Order: sequence, then C-alpha cells, then structure tokens
Amino acid sequence: MRNLDENTITEAVLARHAHAGDERLKTVVTSLVRHLHAFAREVNLSENEWEQGIRFLTDVGHITDDKRQEFILLSDTLGLSMLVTAMANRKPPGCTEATVFGPFFVEGAPAYRNGDDVSNGARGEPCFVSGTVKGADGEAVANARIEVWQADADGFYDVQHAGNDTHRARGVLHSLADGRYHFRSIVAEPYPIPHDGPVGRMLAALGRHPWRPAHLHFMITAPGYERLVTHVFREGDQYLDSDAVFGVRSSLVAQWKHHEAGTAPDGTSMTTPFSTLEFDFVLNRST
Amino acid sequence: MRNLDENTITEAVLARHAHAGDERLKTVVTSLVRHLHAFAREVNLSENEWEQGIRFLTDVGHITDDKRQEFILLSDTLGLSMLVTAMANRKPPGCTEATVFGPFFVEGAPAYRNGDDVSNGARGEPCFVSGTVKGADGEAVANARIEVWQADADGFYDVQHAGNDTHRARGVLHSLADGRYHFRSIVAEPYPIPHDGPVGRMLAALGRHPWRPAHLHFMITAPGYERLVTHVFREGDQYLDSDAVFGVRSSLVAQWKHHEAGTAPDGTSMTTPFSTLEFDFVLNRST
Repeated sequence: MRNLDENTITEAVLARHAHAGDERLKTVVTSLVRHLHAFAREVNLSENEWEQGIRFLTDVGHITDDKRQEFILLSDTLGLSMLVTAMANRKPPGCTEATVFGPFFVEGAPAYRNGDDVSNGARGEPCFVSGTVKGADGEAVANARIEVWQADADGFYDVQHAGNDTHRARGVLHSLADGRYHFRSIVAEPYPIPHDGPVGRMLAALGRHPWRPAHLHFMITAPGYERLVTHVFREGDQYLDSDAVFGVRSSLVAQWKHHEAGTAPDGTSMTTPFSTLEFDFVLNRST
Repeated sequence: MRNLDENTITEAVLARHAHAGDERLKTVVTSLVRHLHAFAREVNLSENEWEQGIRFLTDVGHITDDKRQEFILLSDTLGLSMLVTAMANRKPPGCTEATVFGPFFVEGAPAYRNGDDVSNGARGEPCFVSGTVKGADGEAVANARIEVWQADADGFYDVQHAGNDTHRARGVLHSLADGRYHFRSIVAEPYPIPHDGPVGRMLAALGRHPWRPAHLHFMITAPGYERLVTHVFREGDQYLDSDAVFGVRSSLVAQWKHHEAGTAPDGTSMTTPFSTLEFDFVLNRST
C-alpha cells in the first residue's frame, strides 16, 4: 500500500472494498473503478486534462437545480441513458419500444379526461391525439394511466419558461374500457436541448448540434404490464437521423396529419388549421 | 440511427464526433464513451441504479463550492487522482516521488522567509522543518519556490474553519543559495477527509474509513526542473497503510522527532515540547 504505482493502484483500490456490506454495490463500483482507470491509462490522461474534467463536472453540478438537470443531459448526449433504457426494456416483438425519459418530466401533472385539452394555454397549432393501449396478445388495456408531456411551438417545456409555475402541455388521463384514449394538445416542434451550459459547450467542441426531433413523451402504466416510457416522433422531421440524445426508433415515428380549418375528429369545429395524430401503444406483460 | 439498440449505440455515439475539431478531445471522449458504455453493459446497470448515480453526482455538485471540492475528493477516493499523478510523474530513480494534490490548496498563500513561522496561529505543537532542494545530479537548487500547506492539531486546514479568512499553516518561501530551506510550523495530525457529504456516504457504504495519515503538502518549482507536488508523511502514523486517497509512498515517509523544551535547531529557546523534521527534495530536470 505504500508503494503503489500506475500499474498496481487499481487492485489496491478494489481491495479496499473487501468489507463492503452490499454485494451489488461492490460489483458496480468494482466495474466502475476498473473502467475509470482503464480510460485514464488508455488516453494517458494528463494532470491538466484531469483538472479540466473536474472543472467540467463542477460546472455541470452548479447549473443543475430543481428545474434543470445537466447530469441527465450529459448522460443523454453521451448515449448512456439510451443504453440503460435499451437494456432495461428488452421486449418481445410487437411491443412498443421504450426510449429515454429526458430531463423535463415533473411530478404532479394535472389530471384530464379523454377529450380534454391538455395544452392548458401552451402556444402551438392544435393537435388531436388518439389511439389505443393494448397488450401483446391484442387485448385492450382499460384504465391504463397515460401521462403525456411535450414542448410548445417555441420548443420549450412549461418548466423552461422563467417564472412559470403552471403545468402546460402535460397531463394524466386514463384509457377507456376498450383501451382507446384521445385528447387535444398542440403540435410539438423540434428543439435544442439546453445548450447554454457545460453540456452545450461539450457538444460544440465535438462538432455536434443540440437538436432533438419533435416528439411527444408518454409514460403508460397499468396493473399486470411493464411500465412504458417512450416518445412518439413526427415523420419528416429534419433531426430524426441526428437526435442529440439518440432516442429515435423507426417504430416510434408517426404521421402527424395537417388539416385546414373544419371539423376535428372529436367533432370540435375548428376555425384555424389543426393536426391529428393516431398512435397505438402495445404494453409488455410484467413477469 | 433510427434503429439503435444496446449493441449498436456505442458506435453511433462515436460516429457523431466525426467532425470534432480537436483530435485530442476526440480521442479522450471516444475512450470515455467506450468505457462508460462497457461499464453499464458489464454490470447491466438498471434504470434505478442510473437514477441513483444521477442523484449522487448532483449531490456531489451541490456540496462543491469555492472552499470544498467534492469532485476532487471523489477522484481521490476512487484512486483516479493518484493514477493520473503517477502517470504524469514518471521520474528517474533518486528523484522525489510525486503524490496527490488534494482539495485544500488555495491560491494566494502568504510569502515567508526562511526561519519564519508559517503556522500564523494555527493550533499545534511547534515543528521545525528543514532540508535541501537538489537536482538529480546532486546539484543544489537555489531560489526554488517552496509552497507548503498542512492541517492543524484538530485535523483541519485553515479553509475548513467556518468564517476564517486568514491563511494559517500555509505559505511560500524560497531555498537559499546552497539549496537549504528551513521554517517553523506545527506538527500535522491525521484527519478524516470531509465525510459529511456524498463521498463520505459512499465510503461508509463501501466499508471504508475516511482517514489520511498525517502529512505536510509541498509544491516546489524552479526553472529548468519539473514541478514537484508531493507530501511528507509521519513515520508511525496508524493510517500509513490505509490512506483514504492512496497517496502514501515509502520514500515520502520521514521521522518527525519529538523534543522536550529546550533549544530548537534555529536557536529559538522553547519553553514547551516541540518536533523537528528534516526532508531533502530531489527535482527532476524538465525536458
């Protein structure tokens, strides 16, 4: 222990965890230390680079607060979030694929009934969303809890508008007896992830743009089924092949149909243009 | 890009960096992403564990301020700091080994002359420190800049005392024409690294203590020589074989001799017990 060098230090660190009470924690930290050290050795990380790394993580920590989660952005942009999501959601063919959770979910979204307008004043072209929630054998899933959240016409979520404490373009509803759901919201637009902080500087240095293709977030839960956290993306979006957080899946891309003023699917008489989106979710049974 | 899975995502992330302007950054991030993903795959990191990781890093960020650097503590306790230090300081035999920088260095330490008392009121048994600064061929290094900093009798650095803005037990002096230096300070004591935060909780969960053996920090610079950042440890300390940050090297352990009241090496008449420490530094030529 008094004569460690660059070759022996890794095993010395791991030996220090011999008495860890939690076997799983020990497994995770062992792998983490091995890979962290292997990374430093592989690139021969300099003291100056190490200092830059410490400063970067410090900046990430200091910009993070209860409305902005820069560590999640970092994980998202490095593809770690999508990797963890993929590993945790290995589903049989036919089930709706999962994608990243993202940093803009907030607890306490308001409850709505089918047919309600969840936009709650968020800016954007009206969009009527409908579809079904089914199980993998085609059975309707009644009373599934459907939480939806999305950005507005300016590419911002409600929580990103300074001083705003009102939930907009996010809400919770439940599927009907035949598994169907329908609500009114607004058309989502592509937006850059917050890029005025350290993660934005990292993307710029790596020659990457910060944009995400337009999408709705869904989180669907029902007894007897695995929780589904996913997006529905908008066909034709220019960022579908370069999503900053690697969240796009072909199976999650749908057509958002544009309509001139007239009668909406739920019978509402619209005096302005609007869009419609239909998407069916298939849940995997929980084991 | 629209059909990534847990096996293909790593290469997709790396492909996104094709246009990075800085080749070294690209190299470092490529290795980092590969190891980060390999770690997640190896332990099959769960969504819940990922969330715990995000929360842990957020806590590390939020406790870090201009006086406390929890990310450095994290790097230190995982052995990364010592690894980077070792790789950056491969020296010929005979040169003084480097060790970790630690989180308690601060800019602007006061200037002292040889013979001065750098403790500046810090609590502890007086200690007279002396030695030489030489080059690898035995040549005296005159006017080397010697910065020293250390903990007090309570195991705290000056910056850890709430409300204290006075530099204590830290200072800068220069070696004399024959390479010798000497100053008065206090005896350093072992201390726990700050463990009331997330790193402390991590150590506890891993069954590790947070203690460091007693030491003085030195940073020595001189034109024509490599910067030396190191410690001098106290022979007999109970934590020499279990330093929380893996910084001990046999060659850096020295005897701190205890003396009853009497005449100090510099002629001062001491009415209380005191210690003496002699340590010679050997600098590597810069190339």
